[in-house]
Amino acid sequence: MTTQVKSYAAHSATDPLGPFDINRRSPGPDDVAIEILFCGICHSDLHYTHNDWADALPAVHPCVPGHEIVGRVTTVGARVTKHRFGDLVAVGCLVDSDHTCPNCQAGLENFCRNLTLTFGSVDRHGTAPMTFGGYSESIVVNERFVLRVPTNLDPAGAAPLLCAGITTYSPLRRFGVGPGKKVGIVGLGGLGHMGVKLARAFGARVVVFTTSPRKVEDALRLGAHEVVVSSNAGEMSKHAGSFDFILDTVSAEHDINQYLYLLRIDGNLTLVGAPPKPLSLSSFALIFGNRSVSGSNIGGIAQTQEMLDFCGEHNITADIELISVQKINEAWARLEKADVKYRFVIDMASLKS
Amino acid sequence: MTTQVKSYAAHSATDPLGPFDINRRSPGPDDVAIEILFCGICHSDLHYTHNDWADALPAVHPCVPGHEIVGRVTTVGARVTKHRFGDLVAVGCLVDSDHTCPNCQAGLENFCRNLTLTFGSVDRHGTAPMTFGGYSESIVVNERFVLRVPTNLDPAGAAPLLCAGITTYSPLRRFGVGPGKKVGIVGLGGLGHMGVKLARAFGARVVVFTTSPRKVEDALRLGAHEVVVSSNAGEMSKHAGSFDFILDTVSAEHDINQYLYLLRIDGNLTLVGAPPKPLSLSSFALIFGNRSVSGSNIGGIAQTQEMLDFCGEHNITADIELISVQKINEAWARLEKADVKYRFVIDMASLKS
Repeated sequence: MTTQVKSYAAHSATDPLGPFDINRRSPGPDDVAIEILFCGICHSDLHYTHNDWADALPAVHPCVPGHEIVGRVTTVGARVTKHRFGDLVAVGCLVDSDHTCPNCQAGLENFCRNLTLTFGSVDRHGTAPMTFGGYSESIVVNERFVLRVPTNLDPAGAAPLLCAGITTYSPLRRFGVGPGKKVGIVGLGGLGHMGVKLARAFGARVVVFTTSPRKVEDALRLGAHEVVVSSNAGEMSKHAGSFDFILDTVSAEHDINQYLYLLRIDGNLTLVGAPPKPLSLSSFALIFGNRSVSGSNIGGIAQTQEMLDFCGEHNITADIELISVQKINEAWARLEKADVKYRFVIDMASLKS
Repeated sequence: MTTQVKSYAAHSATDPLGPFDINRRSPGPDDVAIEILFCGICHSDLHYTHNDWADALPAVHPCVPGHEIVGRVTTVGARVTKHRFGDLVAVGCLVDSDHTCPNCQAGLENFCRNLTLTFGSVDRHGTAPMTFGGYSESIVVNERFVLRVPTNLDPAGAAPLLCAGITTYSPLRRFGVGPGKKVGIVGLGGLGHMGVKLARAFGARVVVFTTSPRKVEDALRLGAHEVVVSSNAGEMSKHAGSFDFILDTVSAEHDINQYLYLLRIDGNLTLVGAPPKPLSLSSFALIFGNRSVSGSNIGGIAQTQEMLDFCGEHNITADIELISVQKINEAWARLEKADVKYRFVIDMASLKS
């Protein structure tokens, strides 16, 4: 049995998004049905839908994007214990995994080879060929992949935590960012602005690198102790060899070597943006300093809940622009020009009108 | 007071090496004078002398290369306590540092900003403008930078441990290579063949990647459990996602991304070769696996001694071709074609003739 619900979908890599009716399965015994209140717009939504990642993750259309979902529980299956009717909950990038592989056992469901992405994965429940994401009225998800949202948080501002939040939280934790550490955040977009807020809340000294002098004031407001305009070689060189960790959130082509030289001995730069073309890497920058470049991809379910709880304790949400679903194509166009402070979130009530 | 000693030097980036008399200082109270018995030929000797690293470390000529030195103590200064007349000792890439900076305090003299390289650094003792290395009869070194060589080791085969040995030992230790770990060694040259011996002695499963099918047998003899010819895509893909650690010893341009995909989640590839041109780095290879690329540069003095002691316990030396000093230019020419199994070592007795 299925329920027909409204959504916004793209029917090809070049079509705009428009209204589209999809079917959601009826909740099974382990499922939670969620009325979606807010859904963030992540750059991945665009990349996937436009088939920018054709090699790694070819797009299937029609596609309903959206994996920064906050909503209310409307129904729970008979075996569900974690969530109750009316709870404020969230769904991120994943809606299922095999639960048995070493990665799942290690709490890294995000690296399960049999994971089901919130949109664009084969739908094992067969309601549709592929999973449909959060640009829709409701969603049905196995309770293990449903997160609790601290009730003190603004639910619209909390939506981007599900991708932008965990994507930055996870590497900051992995590399021990905290008091006494000097941390750089490269790029002040959706990911970067979350990185600033989180690194500051962890107690680190936070330096933002930006190409835009007009972002300096905003970076300071968001929590940076210092802002460096990266085109200013003199300012850059003052920081040579001084950073414990740099979080690089830029998804366009850029020079990572200039940042590697700012790391202290044994320091790490982690990429969370995904530039489509290969980056140029100087082996000297790594070797003469035992430095590292890493990548990081969201986080497991337990860590995502940990991140939400941390954000609840520190009252951290994303800075957002709330839009109606009818404005999606306009928002996507602006996002492609990085013209948003700092995340679009769709008010899903607008889908009913 | 100084002593004139014989050496082999290059007088420009393009001149061959030839006989050259240099002055060594008389040992001060903290110094050890060493009669050099053997000196390994490291690819760095060529790179520096030929000014291949003009940007990072411009060459000064005349240049006496050599930083894989094994010899006998002939004199010790009044305050020397670590070494005695007649001891078998070694000198690696460093002959001094400031002893006071945070890196020195942490045992990472190799990252001291005021370090003195064995050749090509400003000579603080003023005997010559620049320090002269091990292609010479003798050397005078502060006792802190003089290592003990286990007496069970062949002294000629031990010489390359001072650079090739520590360069591979240090990252293998840093990344916890040992029983239960699957380790790749990319390239089977001077560094690679030491990496194989050490990783095997640490108890890991060792897989060698080589472009030369003719090296397969040798790799197995040196201790590899398995050898993969890297041009064989089918063989490569069998190992996808399975390595804990890969040591990349290749100093020519090559594709590191094909190796990154062989790492398990959270795995690391460490570069110890230094390709002169930037490498192409796929952010996807890092992000979809939380993987890392690191660099590693020799090791500190304490770790170098630890490595020598470990090699003593496990009877590990380099596989060498012993040459007379008169054959240096021929050896350099062969080394440039990677035609050596696996390290040239100069028998310094030949310098007296």
